[in-house]
Parts: sequence; structure tokens; C-alpha cells
Amino acid sequence: MSTALNELFTKHKATIDESVSAVHNRHFYAHWPEPPSGKIYGETAQADGEAAFKSFLNNKFEGLGEGDLWYGTEESPYGFALNITYPSVQPETLVQRASAAFKPWAKYTPAQRAGLLTEALERSAQNFFAVAFATMHTTGQGFVMSFQASGPHAYDRGLEAIGLGYFEQTRFPEHVEWEKPMGKFSVKLDKGYRAIGRGVSLVIGCSTFPVWNSLPSVMASLVTGNPVIVKPHPKAILPMAILVRDIRATFEEHGIDPNTIQLGVDGETLMTKELAEHPSVKLIDYTGSTSFGNYLEKIEGKIVFTEKAGVNSIILDSVQELDPVLENLAFSLSLYSGQMCTTPQNIFIPKAGIKVGGETVGYEEVVEKLKEKITGLVNHPKMGAGTLGAIQNKATLERVESVDTMGCDIKLVSESVAQPGFEQARSVSPTLVEIPSEKNDLLYKEMFGPIAFVVPTESTKQSIEMASDITAQSGAITFAAYTTDESVAEQIEDALAFAGVPVSFNLTGPIWVNQSATFSDFHVTGGNPAGNASLVDPAFIVRRFFVVGTRKPAQ
Amino acid sequence: MSTALNELFTKHKATIDESVSAVHNRHFYAHWPEPPSGKIYGETAQADGEAAFKSFLNNKFEGLGEGDLWYGTEESPYGFALNITYPSVQPETLVQRASAAFKPWAKYTPAQRAGLLTEALERSAQNFFAVAFATMHTTGQGFVMSFQASGPHAYDRGLEAIGLGYFEQTRFPEHVEWEKPMGKFSVKLDKGYRAIGRGVSLVIGCSTFPVWNSLPSVMASLVTGNPVIVKPHPKAILPMAILVRDIRATFEEHGIDPNTIQLGVDGETLMTKELAEHPSVKLIDYTGSTSFGNYLEKIEGKIVFTEKAGVNSIILDSVQELDPVLENLAFSLSLYSGQMCTTPQNIFIPKAGIKVGGETVGYEEVVEKLKEKITGLVNHPKMGAGTLGAIQNKATLERVESVDTMGCDIKLVSESVAQPGFEQARSVSPTLVEIPSEKNDLLYKEMFGPIAFVVPTESTKQSIEMASDITAQSGAITFAAYTTDESVAEQIEDALAFAGVPVSFNLTGPIWVNQSATFSDFHVTGGNPAGNASLVDPAFIVRRFFVVGTRKPAQ
Repeated sequence: MSTALNELFTKHKATIDESVSAVHNRHFYAHWPEPPSGKIYGETAQADGEAAFKSFLNNKFEGLGEGDLWYGTEESPYGFALNITYPSVQPETLVQRASAAFKPWAKYTPAQRAGLLTEALERSAQNFFAVAFATMHTTGQGFVMSFQASGPHAYDRGLEAIGLGYFEQTRFPEHVEWEKPMGKFSVKLDKGYRAIGRGVSLVIGCSTFPVWNSLPSVMASLVTGNPVIVKPHPKAILPMAILVRDIRATFEEHGIDPNTIQLGVDGETLMTKELAEHPSVKLIDYTGSTSFGNYLEKIEGKIVFTEKAGVNSIILDSVQELDPVLENLAFSLSLYSGQMCTTPQNIFIPKAGIKVGGETVGYEEVVEKLKEKITGLVNHPKMGAGTLGAIQNKATLERVESVDTMGCDIKLVSESVAQPGFEQARSVSPTLVEIPSEKNDLLYKEMFGPIAFVVPTESTKQSIEMASDITAQSGAITFAAYTTDESVAEQIEDALAFAGVPVSFNLTGPIWVNQSATFSDFHVTGGNPAGNASLVDPAFIVRRFFVVGTRKPAQ
Repeated sequence: MSTALNELFTKHKATIDESVSAVHNRHFYAHWPEPPSGKIYGETAQADGEAAFKSFLNNKFEGLGEGDLWYGTEESPYGFALNITYPSVQPETLVQRASAAFKPWAKYTPAQRAGLLTEALERSAQNFFAVAFATMHTTGQGFVMSFQASGPHAYDRGLEAIGLGYFEQTRFPEHVEWEKPMGKFSVKLDKGYRAIGRGVSLVIGCSTFPVWNSLPSVMASLVTGNPVIVKPHPKAILPMAILVRDIRATFEEHGIDPNTIQLGVDGETLMTKELAEHPSVKLIDYTGSTSFGNYLEKIEGKIVFTEKAGVNSIILDSVQELDPVLENLAFSLSLYSGQMCTTPQNIFIPKAGIKVGGETVGYEEVVEKLKEKITGLVNHPKMGAGTLGAIQNKATLERVESVDTMGCDIKLVSESVAQPGFEQARSVSPTLVEIPSEKNDLLYKEMFGPIAFVVPTESTKQSIEMASDITAQSGAITFAAYTTDESVAEQIEDALAFAGVPVSFNLTGPIWVNQSATFSDFHVTGGNPAGNASLVDPAFIVRRFFVVGTRKPAQ
């Protein structure tokens, strides 16, 4: 068995090495191509994926083991019930199975685990299109984003975790002959170093990015020797169910306990707290609300990795040309209807306007143009509906409606958007609200969804002060500024970096502040209240295991 | 100023590189030689150090800035009051000064900080002998241990933290040109990565190893851009006072705010909790009791590194020769009167005795011989007093006396020991108590000081079960086993490694389980209740900073 695993490592060594190298040189690298193209993935791949997705509907989802009951309440934001049920077992059962799988799994070498996990990802990547449709009809993402975010982009993040996990566990020698000179003689010891996983790992998923936000944690925990219980959001189970099924099948095929990874599906009551508080659960990964994240971070005896809510800012100071800037921004605000943790919310614009080339363009004109760009995108027959996608959660729609009660000037009103082929889809256009200075406290609260604020400020200096204070107080995951002035750029970078948020300057064209590139961009810094973990940095890996040394007299 | 710091980095680059290399190859390496020898450190070094120490007595300690009051209550365990006072200021003042020092310090490069800190260590290393006497007369350690533990060994651990800190902050490129192919064109971004410290770091020292347990934390925090408040134990201030004074002087000489490192000396009331709970304090390092460590670990919004109490075990199964084994063990138990976090406590011996060469030696005979070895060492005219040193804390002495009330068979009674030249010294020999199976719960509690338990077991199998359970439940920092049977060794290694403790086998001669070699042995695994941090591993470093990315269109 171990020999077979060693062969798997050899089979995937080039991939793992490339991953380790890309993590460190941080150049562009992608193991799986991002276009959902028939030329890459096979001409029938999309149709096959859709057929696979449809075969899951109105059915029991098989391949995850037996359940005490079969349960599921997923609904597509595009307007239909999935009617899929999954095997649900008691939290205690999940933890017992995971605990039984722990030691055998922890005893494989990091190389053996890395090889097997890469094999599992390659196998599951055959199902990118099925996962894409599953993602679309649980999260509401448009199809292309569903494919990319739950497929190539997520899998690359998973591979990044495997690579860095392998590297961190093997960066110290397995054995060393230690010789200490002591004057006339020397003492010789054989020393060894062994990475030991911490125990059961719980990965709690979210409803908007069920794969992208979970897979790095799953792979980071598995590669470092910890069995994983994936606890998906009850409204977005299917994408991870497919992946967990595929990993379990790969494990079984190689004689490894499939319960090394399990899907913990809620029955009629939610099981997350019971799992999180279980003494055998040592590691917790979480993406979601600040309040639940804070609760998890406080449970005693756990190592907890969180991505929570944040409030992302944009500063407009000066640009060469206004149109490409506002087009870029309009796309960022519209993409998946602002349901990304990376979507900008507060847009700071000096009251006196911004410099465009040599001219000053007034505040009102900038806002007017931004509205036009958003409306143009939303109404674009080819781009609009797919860019927006649908609204995952009804509460988000209610939040959009609630802006009427804020007592602010609504610059752009949210309207229903048709999603061709899905008449019942929950889809709306973004709203743009102006926040006057007397209501600045509104800027500190995340308004998840297609809601953005324009904020007239006294100056760019004030924009910087406000953006960095909001980042430090409320957290932020992304930030972007537009300025042609180098000294302003320096002030911005300095203030926002210390507030703990990555800083993007002058993005136009097909690159948006929302995007985080695997192997190059660290996602979340862990340096502000938006989360304590960063994807995929060394701290995300090294806390999942400890190193035990052995010493004995050299022979 | 930055140029001067760049020159300091160049000056110390070879040292820093050697440190990084030693961390990774884990061979024997020492930057500072451990013998307190005149040939190495100068023939007058010891006398000069003693004179310097004496000049501190009955005086104000200068070089730490002004105090609201001057305070100090240190007493030598060798029997006299130091009568040294230190400047004590309010916690709020300490934190404000540290906060003011934060940003300028964080803006230096990792290389500049590493160079300056190495310079500071080299400068302070001139005072090894003064620090040795200061350590002896606060902790009660014998002179040689005082020199080594607070001098070369501690400074090497500090250098290890500087080296790994420099490495971890610079392992990702400062800048990279990122080019993403997008079919017919490509997107190019200039990306940058910048390590940012987390803020004010509080390092809480202990009374037994005031330098060794604090210096790695101090250097780890400083090199990663965090200002440090050193909070020494009120009974062991002087050793760190000398070091902090020297670092401050080095900083001032290079135009850097000396408050980047401060000594937080208690006045009449202890300030530790107020400092720890201060919202500006982001990092806490602590060595000491489990109860205070647990309190610290629970404070919200802090990153906390702890070394707490543990109960270390020894398993005797089989040996080639008994004498060298028991001599080694006797020394381990006697060294600094068992006041090391690495001292063994529970010694498991099968009731049926152990195999010695081909013969079986009975349990009682093994215990009897161990007593003889301890007594022989204690009464050795050259070795005894210096090995034992004095008892730091009166409570430890009371604990030794309390074994009478345990209702167990006391195999070896603790007696007073003379410390030549110090008639009032608080010095006693170790006690050895037999714990019968009905009192096994006593084995789960740390009995800090010269108290060891011998435990008759049914078999080595039971010894392994008990030692690993105690390790997992109560924590342990060291563990040693003696066995000539490879399959037994394998069982031991497996059980104890998963319980999270380093495993030493068959140590004899001048290498003891108590010892932890810088650059080679990780001290504490972080994998059991004895502490959550490991000296000096990547997790000890990377959690002290976060990385902020910048992105802008490539020119």
C-alpha cells in the first residue's frame, strides 16, 4: 500500500514541485486552465456536466456512506428546488469515524499524502462542469464564475495548499547526525524530526463560495495528517458533495479509510456548534459571518482559521482616463451581484472632484458616469445577466430593499433583472447610495450584496483616513485606489497596508480588485478583523501539525 | 540612517546566513561558545563580570529611562538581598511609548532589523559574565549553568529567532512581474509583498530562566517589526535588565527609538494583567504556570505563545549497563534542583525489574542504585553544590517538605546542602518518592523542584500507556526511554510522539534529557498542554507579522 502511494507521489511529483515553486516565485501559474472551453475540457464536457447535475436532482446523493437519515433542502437561486438528499449522521458518529481514521492517516509520509491528494484532485477535476452547474444552482453565480471559482481557481488553491503543506513538513531533515564538540571528545546523536497532525479538522463552508473557500482548508488539513469533516452550508451542499465523494473514492481505491474525509450534512437541526465544540475537534476552518466566526475563535483548545465579514473601500483621487476606470469599477460592483467577500462597498470621492488627465471632473459627474457604466453593463444583452447571476439568500434581497429606509440619497435604484431560461430567478441590479458625512457610521457595516456607497469627502487625505480606519475597525479583504500622483500612492499604500489590507492601484481592463490569483495573491491578510487566516501562507499550514524530535546515541 | 543599518546587515550577514542555514540543516551549531572560560572570553572576564554584578547591588539600575518610581525586591536564593531598584512606569505609559515606536520600527526592512539586532546581541554578549552572576543570584542556578543558560545558549536561541525571522519575511519576492496569458493578449501586473508587524509585543518572563525563555520571543517579535515590552518576573529582573539596557543603547546609537524595547518593572502592584489586556498589545509570550498561561490564552484579540507546566516521564525497560544510565538520570534529576521545565518527574520501572545486558535486575535494586547515584552526586565535593544550585522560590521548598504528607514511601529524603561561600543559601538535595498504583493520580500533577517519583508498573506496556496518557493530559516537555529492544522503542516513539513530546533514547554520558540544543532541538512541541509554542519553529515566527500584497499595472 505504501509502495502504491509512493508511486502516486512519483506520478504527481512534477505537479507538486511546480506548485511549491509557484508559491515561492509568485509568478502566474495555473495547473487547471480557467476557460470553460470545449477545446480544453472536451466538446461534450459541458453537456455531460449538465446531464450529471440533472441526474442528481430529485435523488439520493450516493457515494458518501450511509446516513441515519437522508436530508437536503437546497434550492436554486435561479428558481427551483433541487430535491437532493444526502446521508446525515450524528456529529458524534462523524467525530468517532474521523478519530478512527486519524492515526493511520497521520502515519503516512507527507509525500505519500501529497501524492494521493493530487491524484484525488486530478480525478475530481474530471467533474468540473458538474460542479459548475452544482455551484450555479446553489450559490446563484453565473455559469462562467461557477466553473472558474469552484473548478480551476479552487483546485489551484487546493494544490497550492498541498504543495506548501508538503514543503513545510519536509523543510527540516528527516534525520541528521548531530555532533557536538566538547573539547577532547565529541558527543554524537542521531536526531529525527517528524511532523504530526493535530487531530480532527472541521471545515465549515459558506453558501456563496462552497468550494473555493473550503478546498484550501481541506487540503491543508489533509496533507498535514488531519482527517477532515466538511460541514457545508445547508443551502450549498452539492458542490462539495461531488468533491468529497471523489476524494473518498480515490482513498478507497488505495486502501485508505474513506472516513479520512467526510461530509457532515445537517439534518433538521444544525450540527455545526456541536461539531465545533467537540473535544476531539482540534482544527476549525470557517468562512462566514463575523458573529459566528468570533464565537468559533473563542472556543477553548482549538486552532481556528477564519474569514469573516469586511467592508472594502475604493479611493478615487486622479486618473488618466475616467471611462476605463469606471467600467472596471462597475464590473467589480456587479460581478455576482456583490456577493463576494472581495466586492468593493465604500467608494470615496472628493467633493471637489477628481483629476482626469489635466482636467477636474466634478463629484456629481463621476457618480453619474459610474451609474451609467453600471446600467450599461446590467443591460448589456450578452454580459448583464451572466455577470450578475442570482441572489443566493433572500435576506440579501431584503437588505437591498432596506436602503430605502436609510434616509440617504439613492443614486441608483436596484431593479429586477431577467435571467434567460430561469423566469423565477432571484436577480436584481446593483444599487448605489450616497452616504453624507453625518451618516458615516453606516460605512463601518458590511452591506453584503449588490449595494455600494458613494462617499463625498473633503479631500483624498480624508478618504485615506476614513478607508484605513474602517479597514482597521471593521476589517477589509480588498482595497483599490486610483491615483496618478506617486506621493499620494505612497500615503495610501502606507496607511492601508498597516490597516492590513492588500492594495491595488489603477486597475483597468480585465483585472478586477475582486480577483485573487492563486500562487500569487494572498487572500485575506489575517491582519484585520476580516479574518485571522491568509490563503495560502505558511501560517495557514504550519499550525496544523507539530514537529516531534527524536534523539538517540549515534551508532 | 537606513544606510548605516544596511551596513550593519552587511557586517552581520555571515552570522545571519549561518543561523538560517543551521536552522534548516539542524546540525550542531553555536555562535557563542558555551564554556565560561578565560581562554575564550578573556582572563579577566569572570572577575570583571562579578565586579559589574556587585556594582549593581544596592543601587539604582541606570540605562532604562526614567521611572515614576524606583522599585525592586530581588533576593538571591544564595541568601542576600540585591537591593537594586529599577525605573517603574505605568502600563499605559509603556504601551504608549511602544505604540509610538511601532510604525518607524516596522518600516525598516527585515534585513535592517536583523542586522541591528545581531549587533545588539554581539554588544550585549560582552556582558555574559555579568549576566551570569545576575542569573545566579536571582534564579539560584549554579554559576556554570547561569553562564550557559543566560549567555551562549540563550543568545544562540535569540540568533536562531533573528535568522528564521529574517528568512520567513524574505522568502517571498519583494516584487514580481506577474503576467497572465488571456488568449490573444496578456495582463501584466507589478506585484509586491510586504511583511507588517502586528503591534505591541509583551514578553512575560519567569523566575528560573529569565533570559533563556524570554530572548527568543524578544528577538522573534523585534525582527518581525513589533516593539517589545519585556515584563520580567519581579524576583528575576536583573539579567534581562542588563540585556534590555544594551539593546536600548545599540538602538539609540543608530538613531532608533530606544522604546522599541522597554523593561516593564512592577511597582508595588503587579502590572502583568493590565499590560496583557491592553487593546494595543497584540502579541503575548509567556513562560510560567498553567493557570496564568490559560488565562492569557483566552484573552480576546491576542496571539499568545505559551510554555506552561508539564510532567516529564522516564521509561526504564532494558539497558546494556545500568550504572551509566542511572548516573545520567541522577544528574538530570539533580541539575538546578529539578527547577527546569525539562526535568524528569515520573520514572516508570516494571515491578519485575529491567533487563541489564542478559540479566534481570529487580525493581528495588534499580531504585536503590538510583538513590546511590543521586547521593553520590550530591555529596561530590566538586560537583554537588554547583549542580544543585539553590531553590529560587520558597514555595518550592515547601513543596519538597509536603511529600511527607502524601502517604507514600519516601525512598530518598531531601536534606540541606551547603553552598560554599553562601551560608544562607536555600539549597537541598532531591527527594525520591514511590507512587503506588492506587495513587496514580499524583502522577498527573507537576511537582516543580527536586522531587521525583518512581512508579512500579506491571510492564513496559503499562509504562508506555501511563506516560503517554499523562503527557497528553497534563503536558510534557521532555521524555526519555531506555530500551535495547527495537520493537519496544518503536512502540514508545509512536505513542509518545502522538502525545506531542520529543523522545530521547538511551542517553548516557554528557548529554541529558533536560538539554535542548539551539538550531537542532525544537523546545516544546506545541502539541500537548505544556505549551502552544515551539522554540524556534516557523509558527513561532510567522504569526508575528502578516503579508500585505500590492498590485498595479506593469509599466
